[in-house]
Amino acid sequence: MLALWLEDRNLTLREDLEAPEAVPDEALVRVRCAGICNTDLELLRGYYPFTGVPGHEFVGVVERGPAELQGRRVVGEINAVCGECATCRAGRRAHCERRKVLGIVGRHGAFAEFLTLPSVNLHLVPDGMSDDVAVFAEPLAAALEIQQQIEITRDDRVLVAGDGKLGQLIARTLAPTGCELCVVGRRPEKLALLERAGILCATEDQIEHGSFDVAIECTGNPDGFDLARRALRPRGTLVLKSTYARKLTVDAASLVVDEITLVGSRCGPFGPALQMLAEGTIDPLPLIHGRYPLKHGVEAFERAGEPDALKILVDMT
Amino acid sequence: MLALWLEDRNLTLREDLEAPEAVPDEALVRVRCAGICNTDLELLRGYYPFTGVPGHEFVGVVERGPAELQGRRVVGEINAVCGECATCRAGRRAHCERRKVLGIVGRHGAFAEFLTLPSVNLHLVPDGMSDDVAVFAEPLAAALEIQQQIEITRDDRVLVAGDGKLGQLIARTLAPTGCELCVVGRRPEKLALLERAGILCATEDQIEHGSFDVAIECTGNPDGFDLARRALRPRGTLVLKSTYARKLTVDAASLVVDEITLVGSRCGPFGPALQMLAEGTIDPLPLIHGRYPLKHGVEAFERAGEPDALKILVDMT
Repeated sequence: MLALWLEDRNLTLREDLEAPEAVPDEALVRVRCAGICNTDLELLRGYYPFTGVPGHEFVGVVERGPAELQGRRVVGEINAVCGECATCRAGRRAHCERRKVLGIVGRHGAFAEFLTLPSVNLHLVPDGMSDDVAVFAEPLAAALEIQQQIEITRDDRVLVAGDGKLGQLIARTLAPTGCELCVVGRRPEKLALLERAGILCATEDQIEHGSFDVAIECTGNPDGFDLARRALRPRGTLVLKSTYARKLTVDAASLVVDEITLVGSRCGPFGPALQMLAEGTIDPLPLIHGRYPLKHGVEAFERAGEPDALKILVDMT
Repeated sequence: MLALWLEDRNLTLREDLEAPEAVPDEALVRVRCAGICNTDLELLRGYYPFTGVPGHEFVGVVERGPAELQGRRVVGEINAVCGECATCRAGRRAHCERRKVLGIVGRHGAFAEFLTLPSVNLHLVPDGMSDDVAVFAEPLAAALEIQQQIEITRDDRVLVAGDGKLGQLIARTLAPTGCELCVVGRRPEKLALLERAGILCATEDQIEHGSFDVAIECTGNPDGFDLARRALRPRGTLVLKSTYARKLTVDAASLVVDEITLVGSRCGPFGPALQMLAEGTIDPLPLIHGRYPLKHGVEAFERAGEPDALKILVDMT
């Protein structure tokens, strides 16, 4: 089959790969469309030593799987778990000690004609929802994870540091809480997109230090941490949402003195994400900044790496 | 009056200082005894550019103050706050934007014959409680702050990283919760002291990675962070309790992937601390490793800086 291949920080198009085989309890999915995430770009920069087919945001059709999924359009949770380790048994399945993660750890991903996932990971795409909307289920679920971890109410002043792909989605999930929301970013055209969705935006110099209850770091680089940190009031909460290769240098004493809480946040719940998309609470379509056929997937990655790009899609159909 | 003086990372004994004057709503306290904290040692190492009399753990007698405190033995909360800024009004008084902190920020401290503090900061020492016990009220309150911030129950597996002064107290505040408690440290004689208090101890190589629900970093240096971090299970909580000058380098991506929560923790509640001391739930006396008269205060600091030392007291009487 045709697929993108990542090896030694190098991405190539390959035509010689075998389609993956679904083992029992797994489904074979024919991918229709996949989105490029910042984590994919960080994998290219060496964030994690993955060799294989990258890609973990997708919509596809079940080619072989359980009857209720057969021939249906699906999106999928990316952690393939054992269900048996202490972490799984404690109910923290997304953190399974033996997990494979689609296109990230030990399992080929979505920039390919086919992928496999455990059938339990798959969620039906509601009829009438376009592929372009459904492909946002995974990153939108990740954005919603924040509200699984900390309560955000209309009394909170919340800063989203980062106007990129993830920041755009996070801001849109926070707006319905009624919180006092502000997104800080560097790219006027990305901020304008948020403003068109009714979300207040600011540039870095407009942020009042020490004034936010919650700050969410999703800039994708360590600079964003400092910005978010400075914006927080004492006893505020800083949510870390970006994964990047570089180390972060922190003034630990200041976290102690100001009694700051840091919360790392990763994958989230697909059910609420699909519901928000189905109800139209969030319209992700303005975030699509380009689409490429799989055979031009390497160019798609180049485009996704440009600073003005939001979501770049790779089409397999 | 006689006092220790810190300036340019240098500690000297001075005899030429004026006793501080209590302004309205403040009390003048004749210090009887003061304890050397790790923060004092870090101030000497440049953790914070403080010039003046250090010291914030004390017991003393009110020389001039409100009638109900006059002539009585007291301990005191270290944050002198304005009561009027947004942070005070929001109920986060210990984080007052204009605060002075006894012996740390903008206010002379306890290694002196006299100090002043707002009268509302002072707590009466129960009759029958010795000065040597009462002087632990401040660090014990700081240890108890952890349980103000996160709930710890008998179902939790808790690691205390650090067998020093603060780690000793923190472990003793956690033991009554019934949690599965373990202290990791490097000094056999300090671990032995904990074991005599019925607390399980371990050395670094005995700690099972990824197995603790909560880890508390109180080693006083960045190495402790890595140890505590590795010990945590996914979605675990790491409490930062040490203040030190050096920066901390963190793998932010791993905090995101494992969805770790970090909680900075500083000053705590004096009421529960005094109650625990009064009831004998905690016996701090075995932690006293030396006492020096104020005129030998510089030597007291030298002793406190030695790796085997726990609490060193400075006597003013």
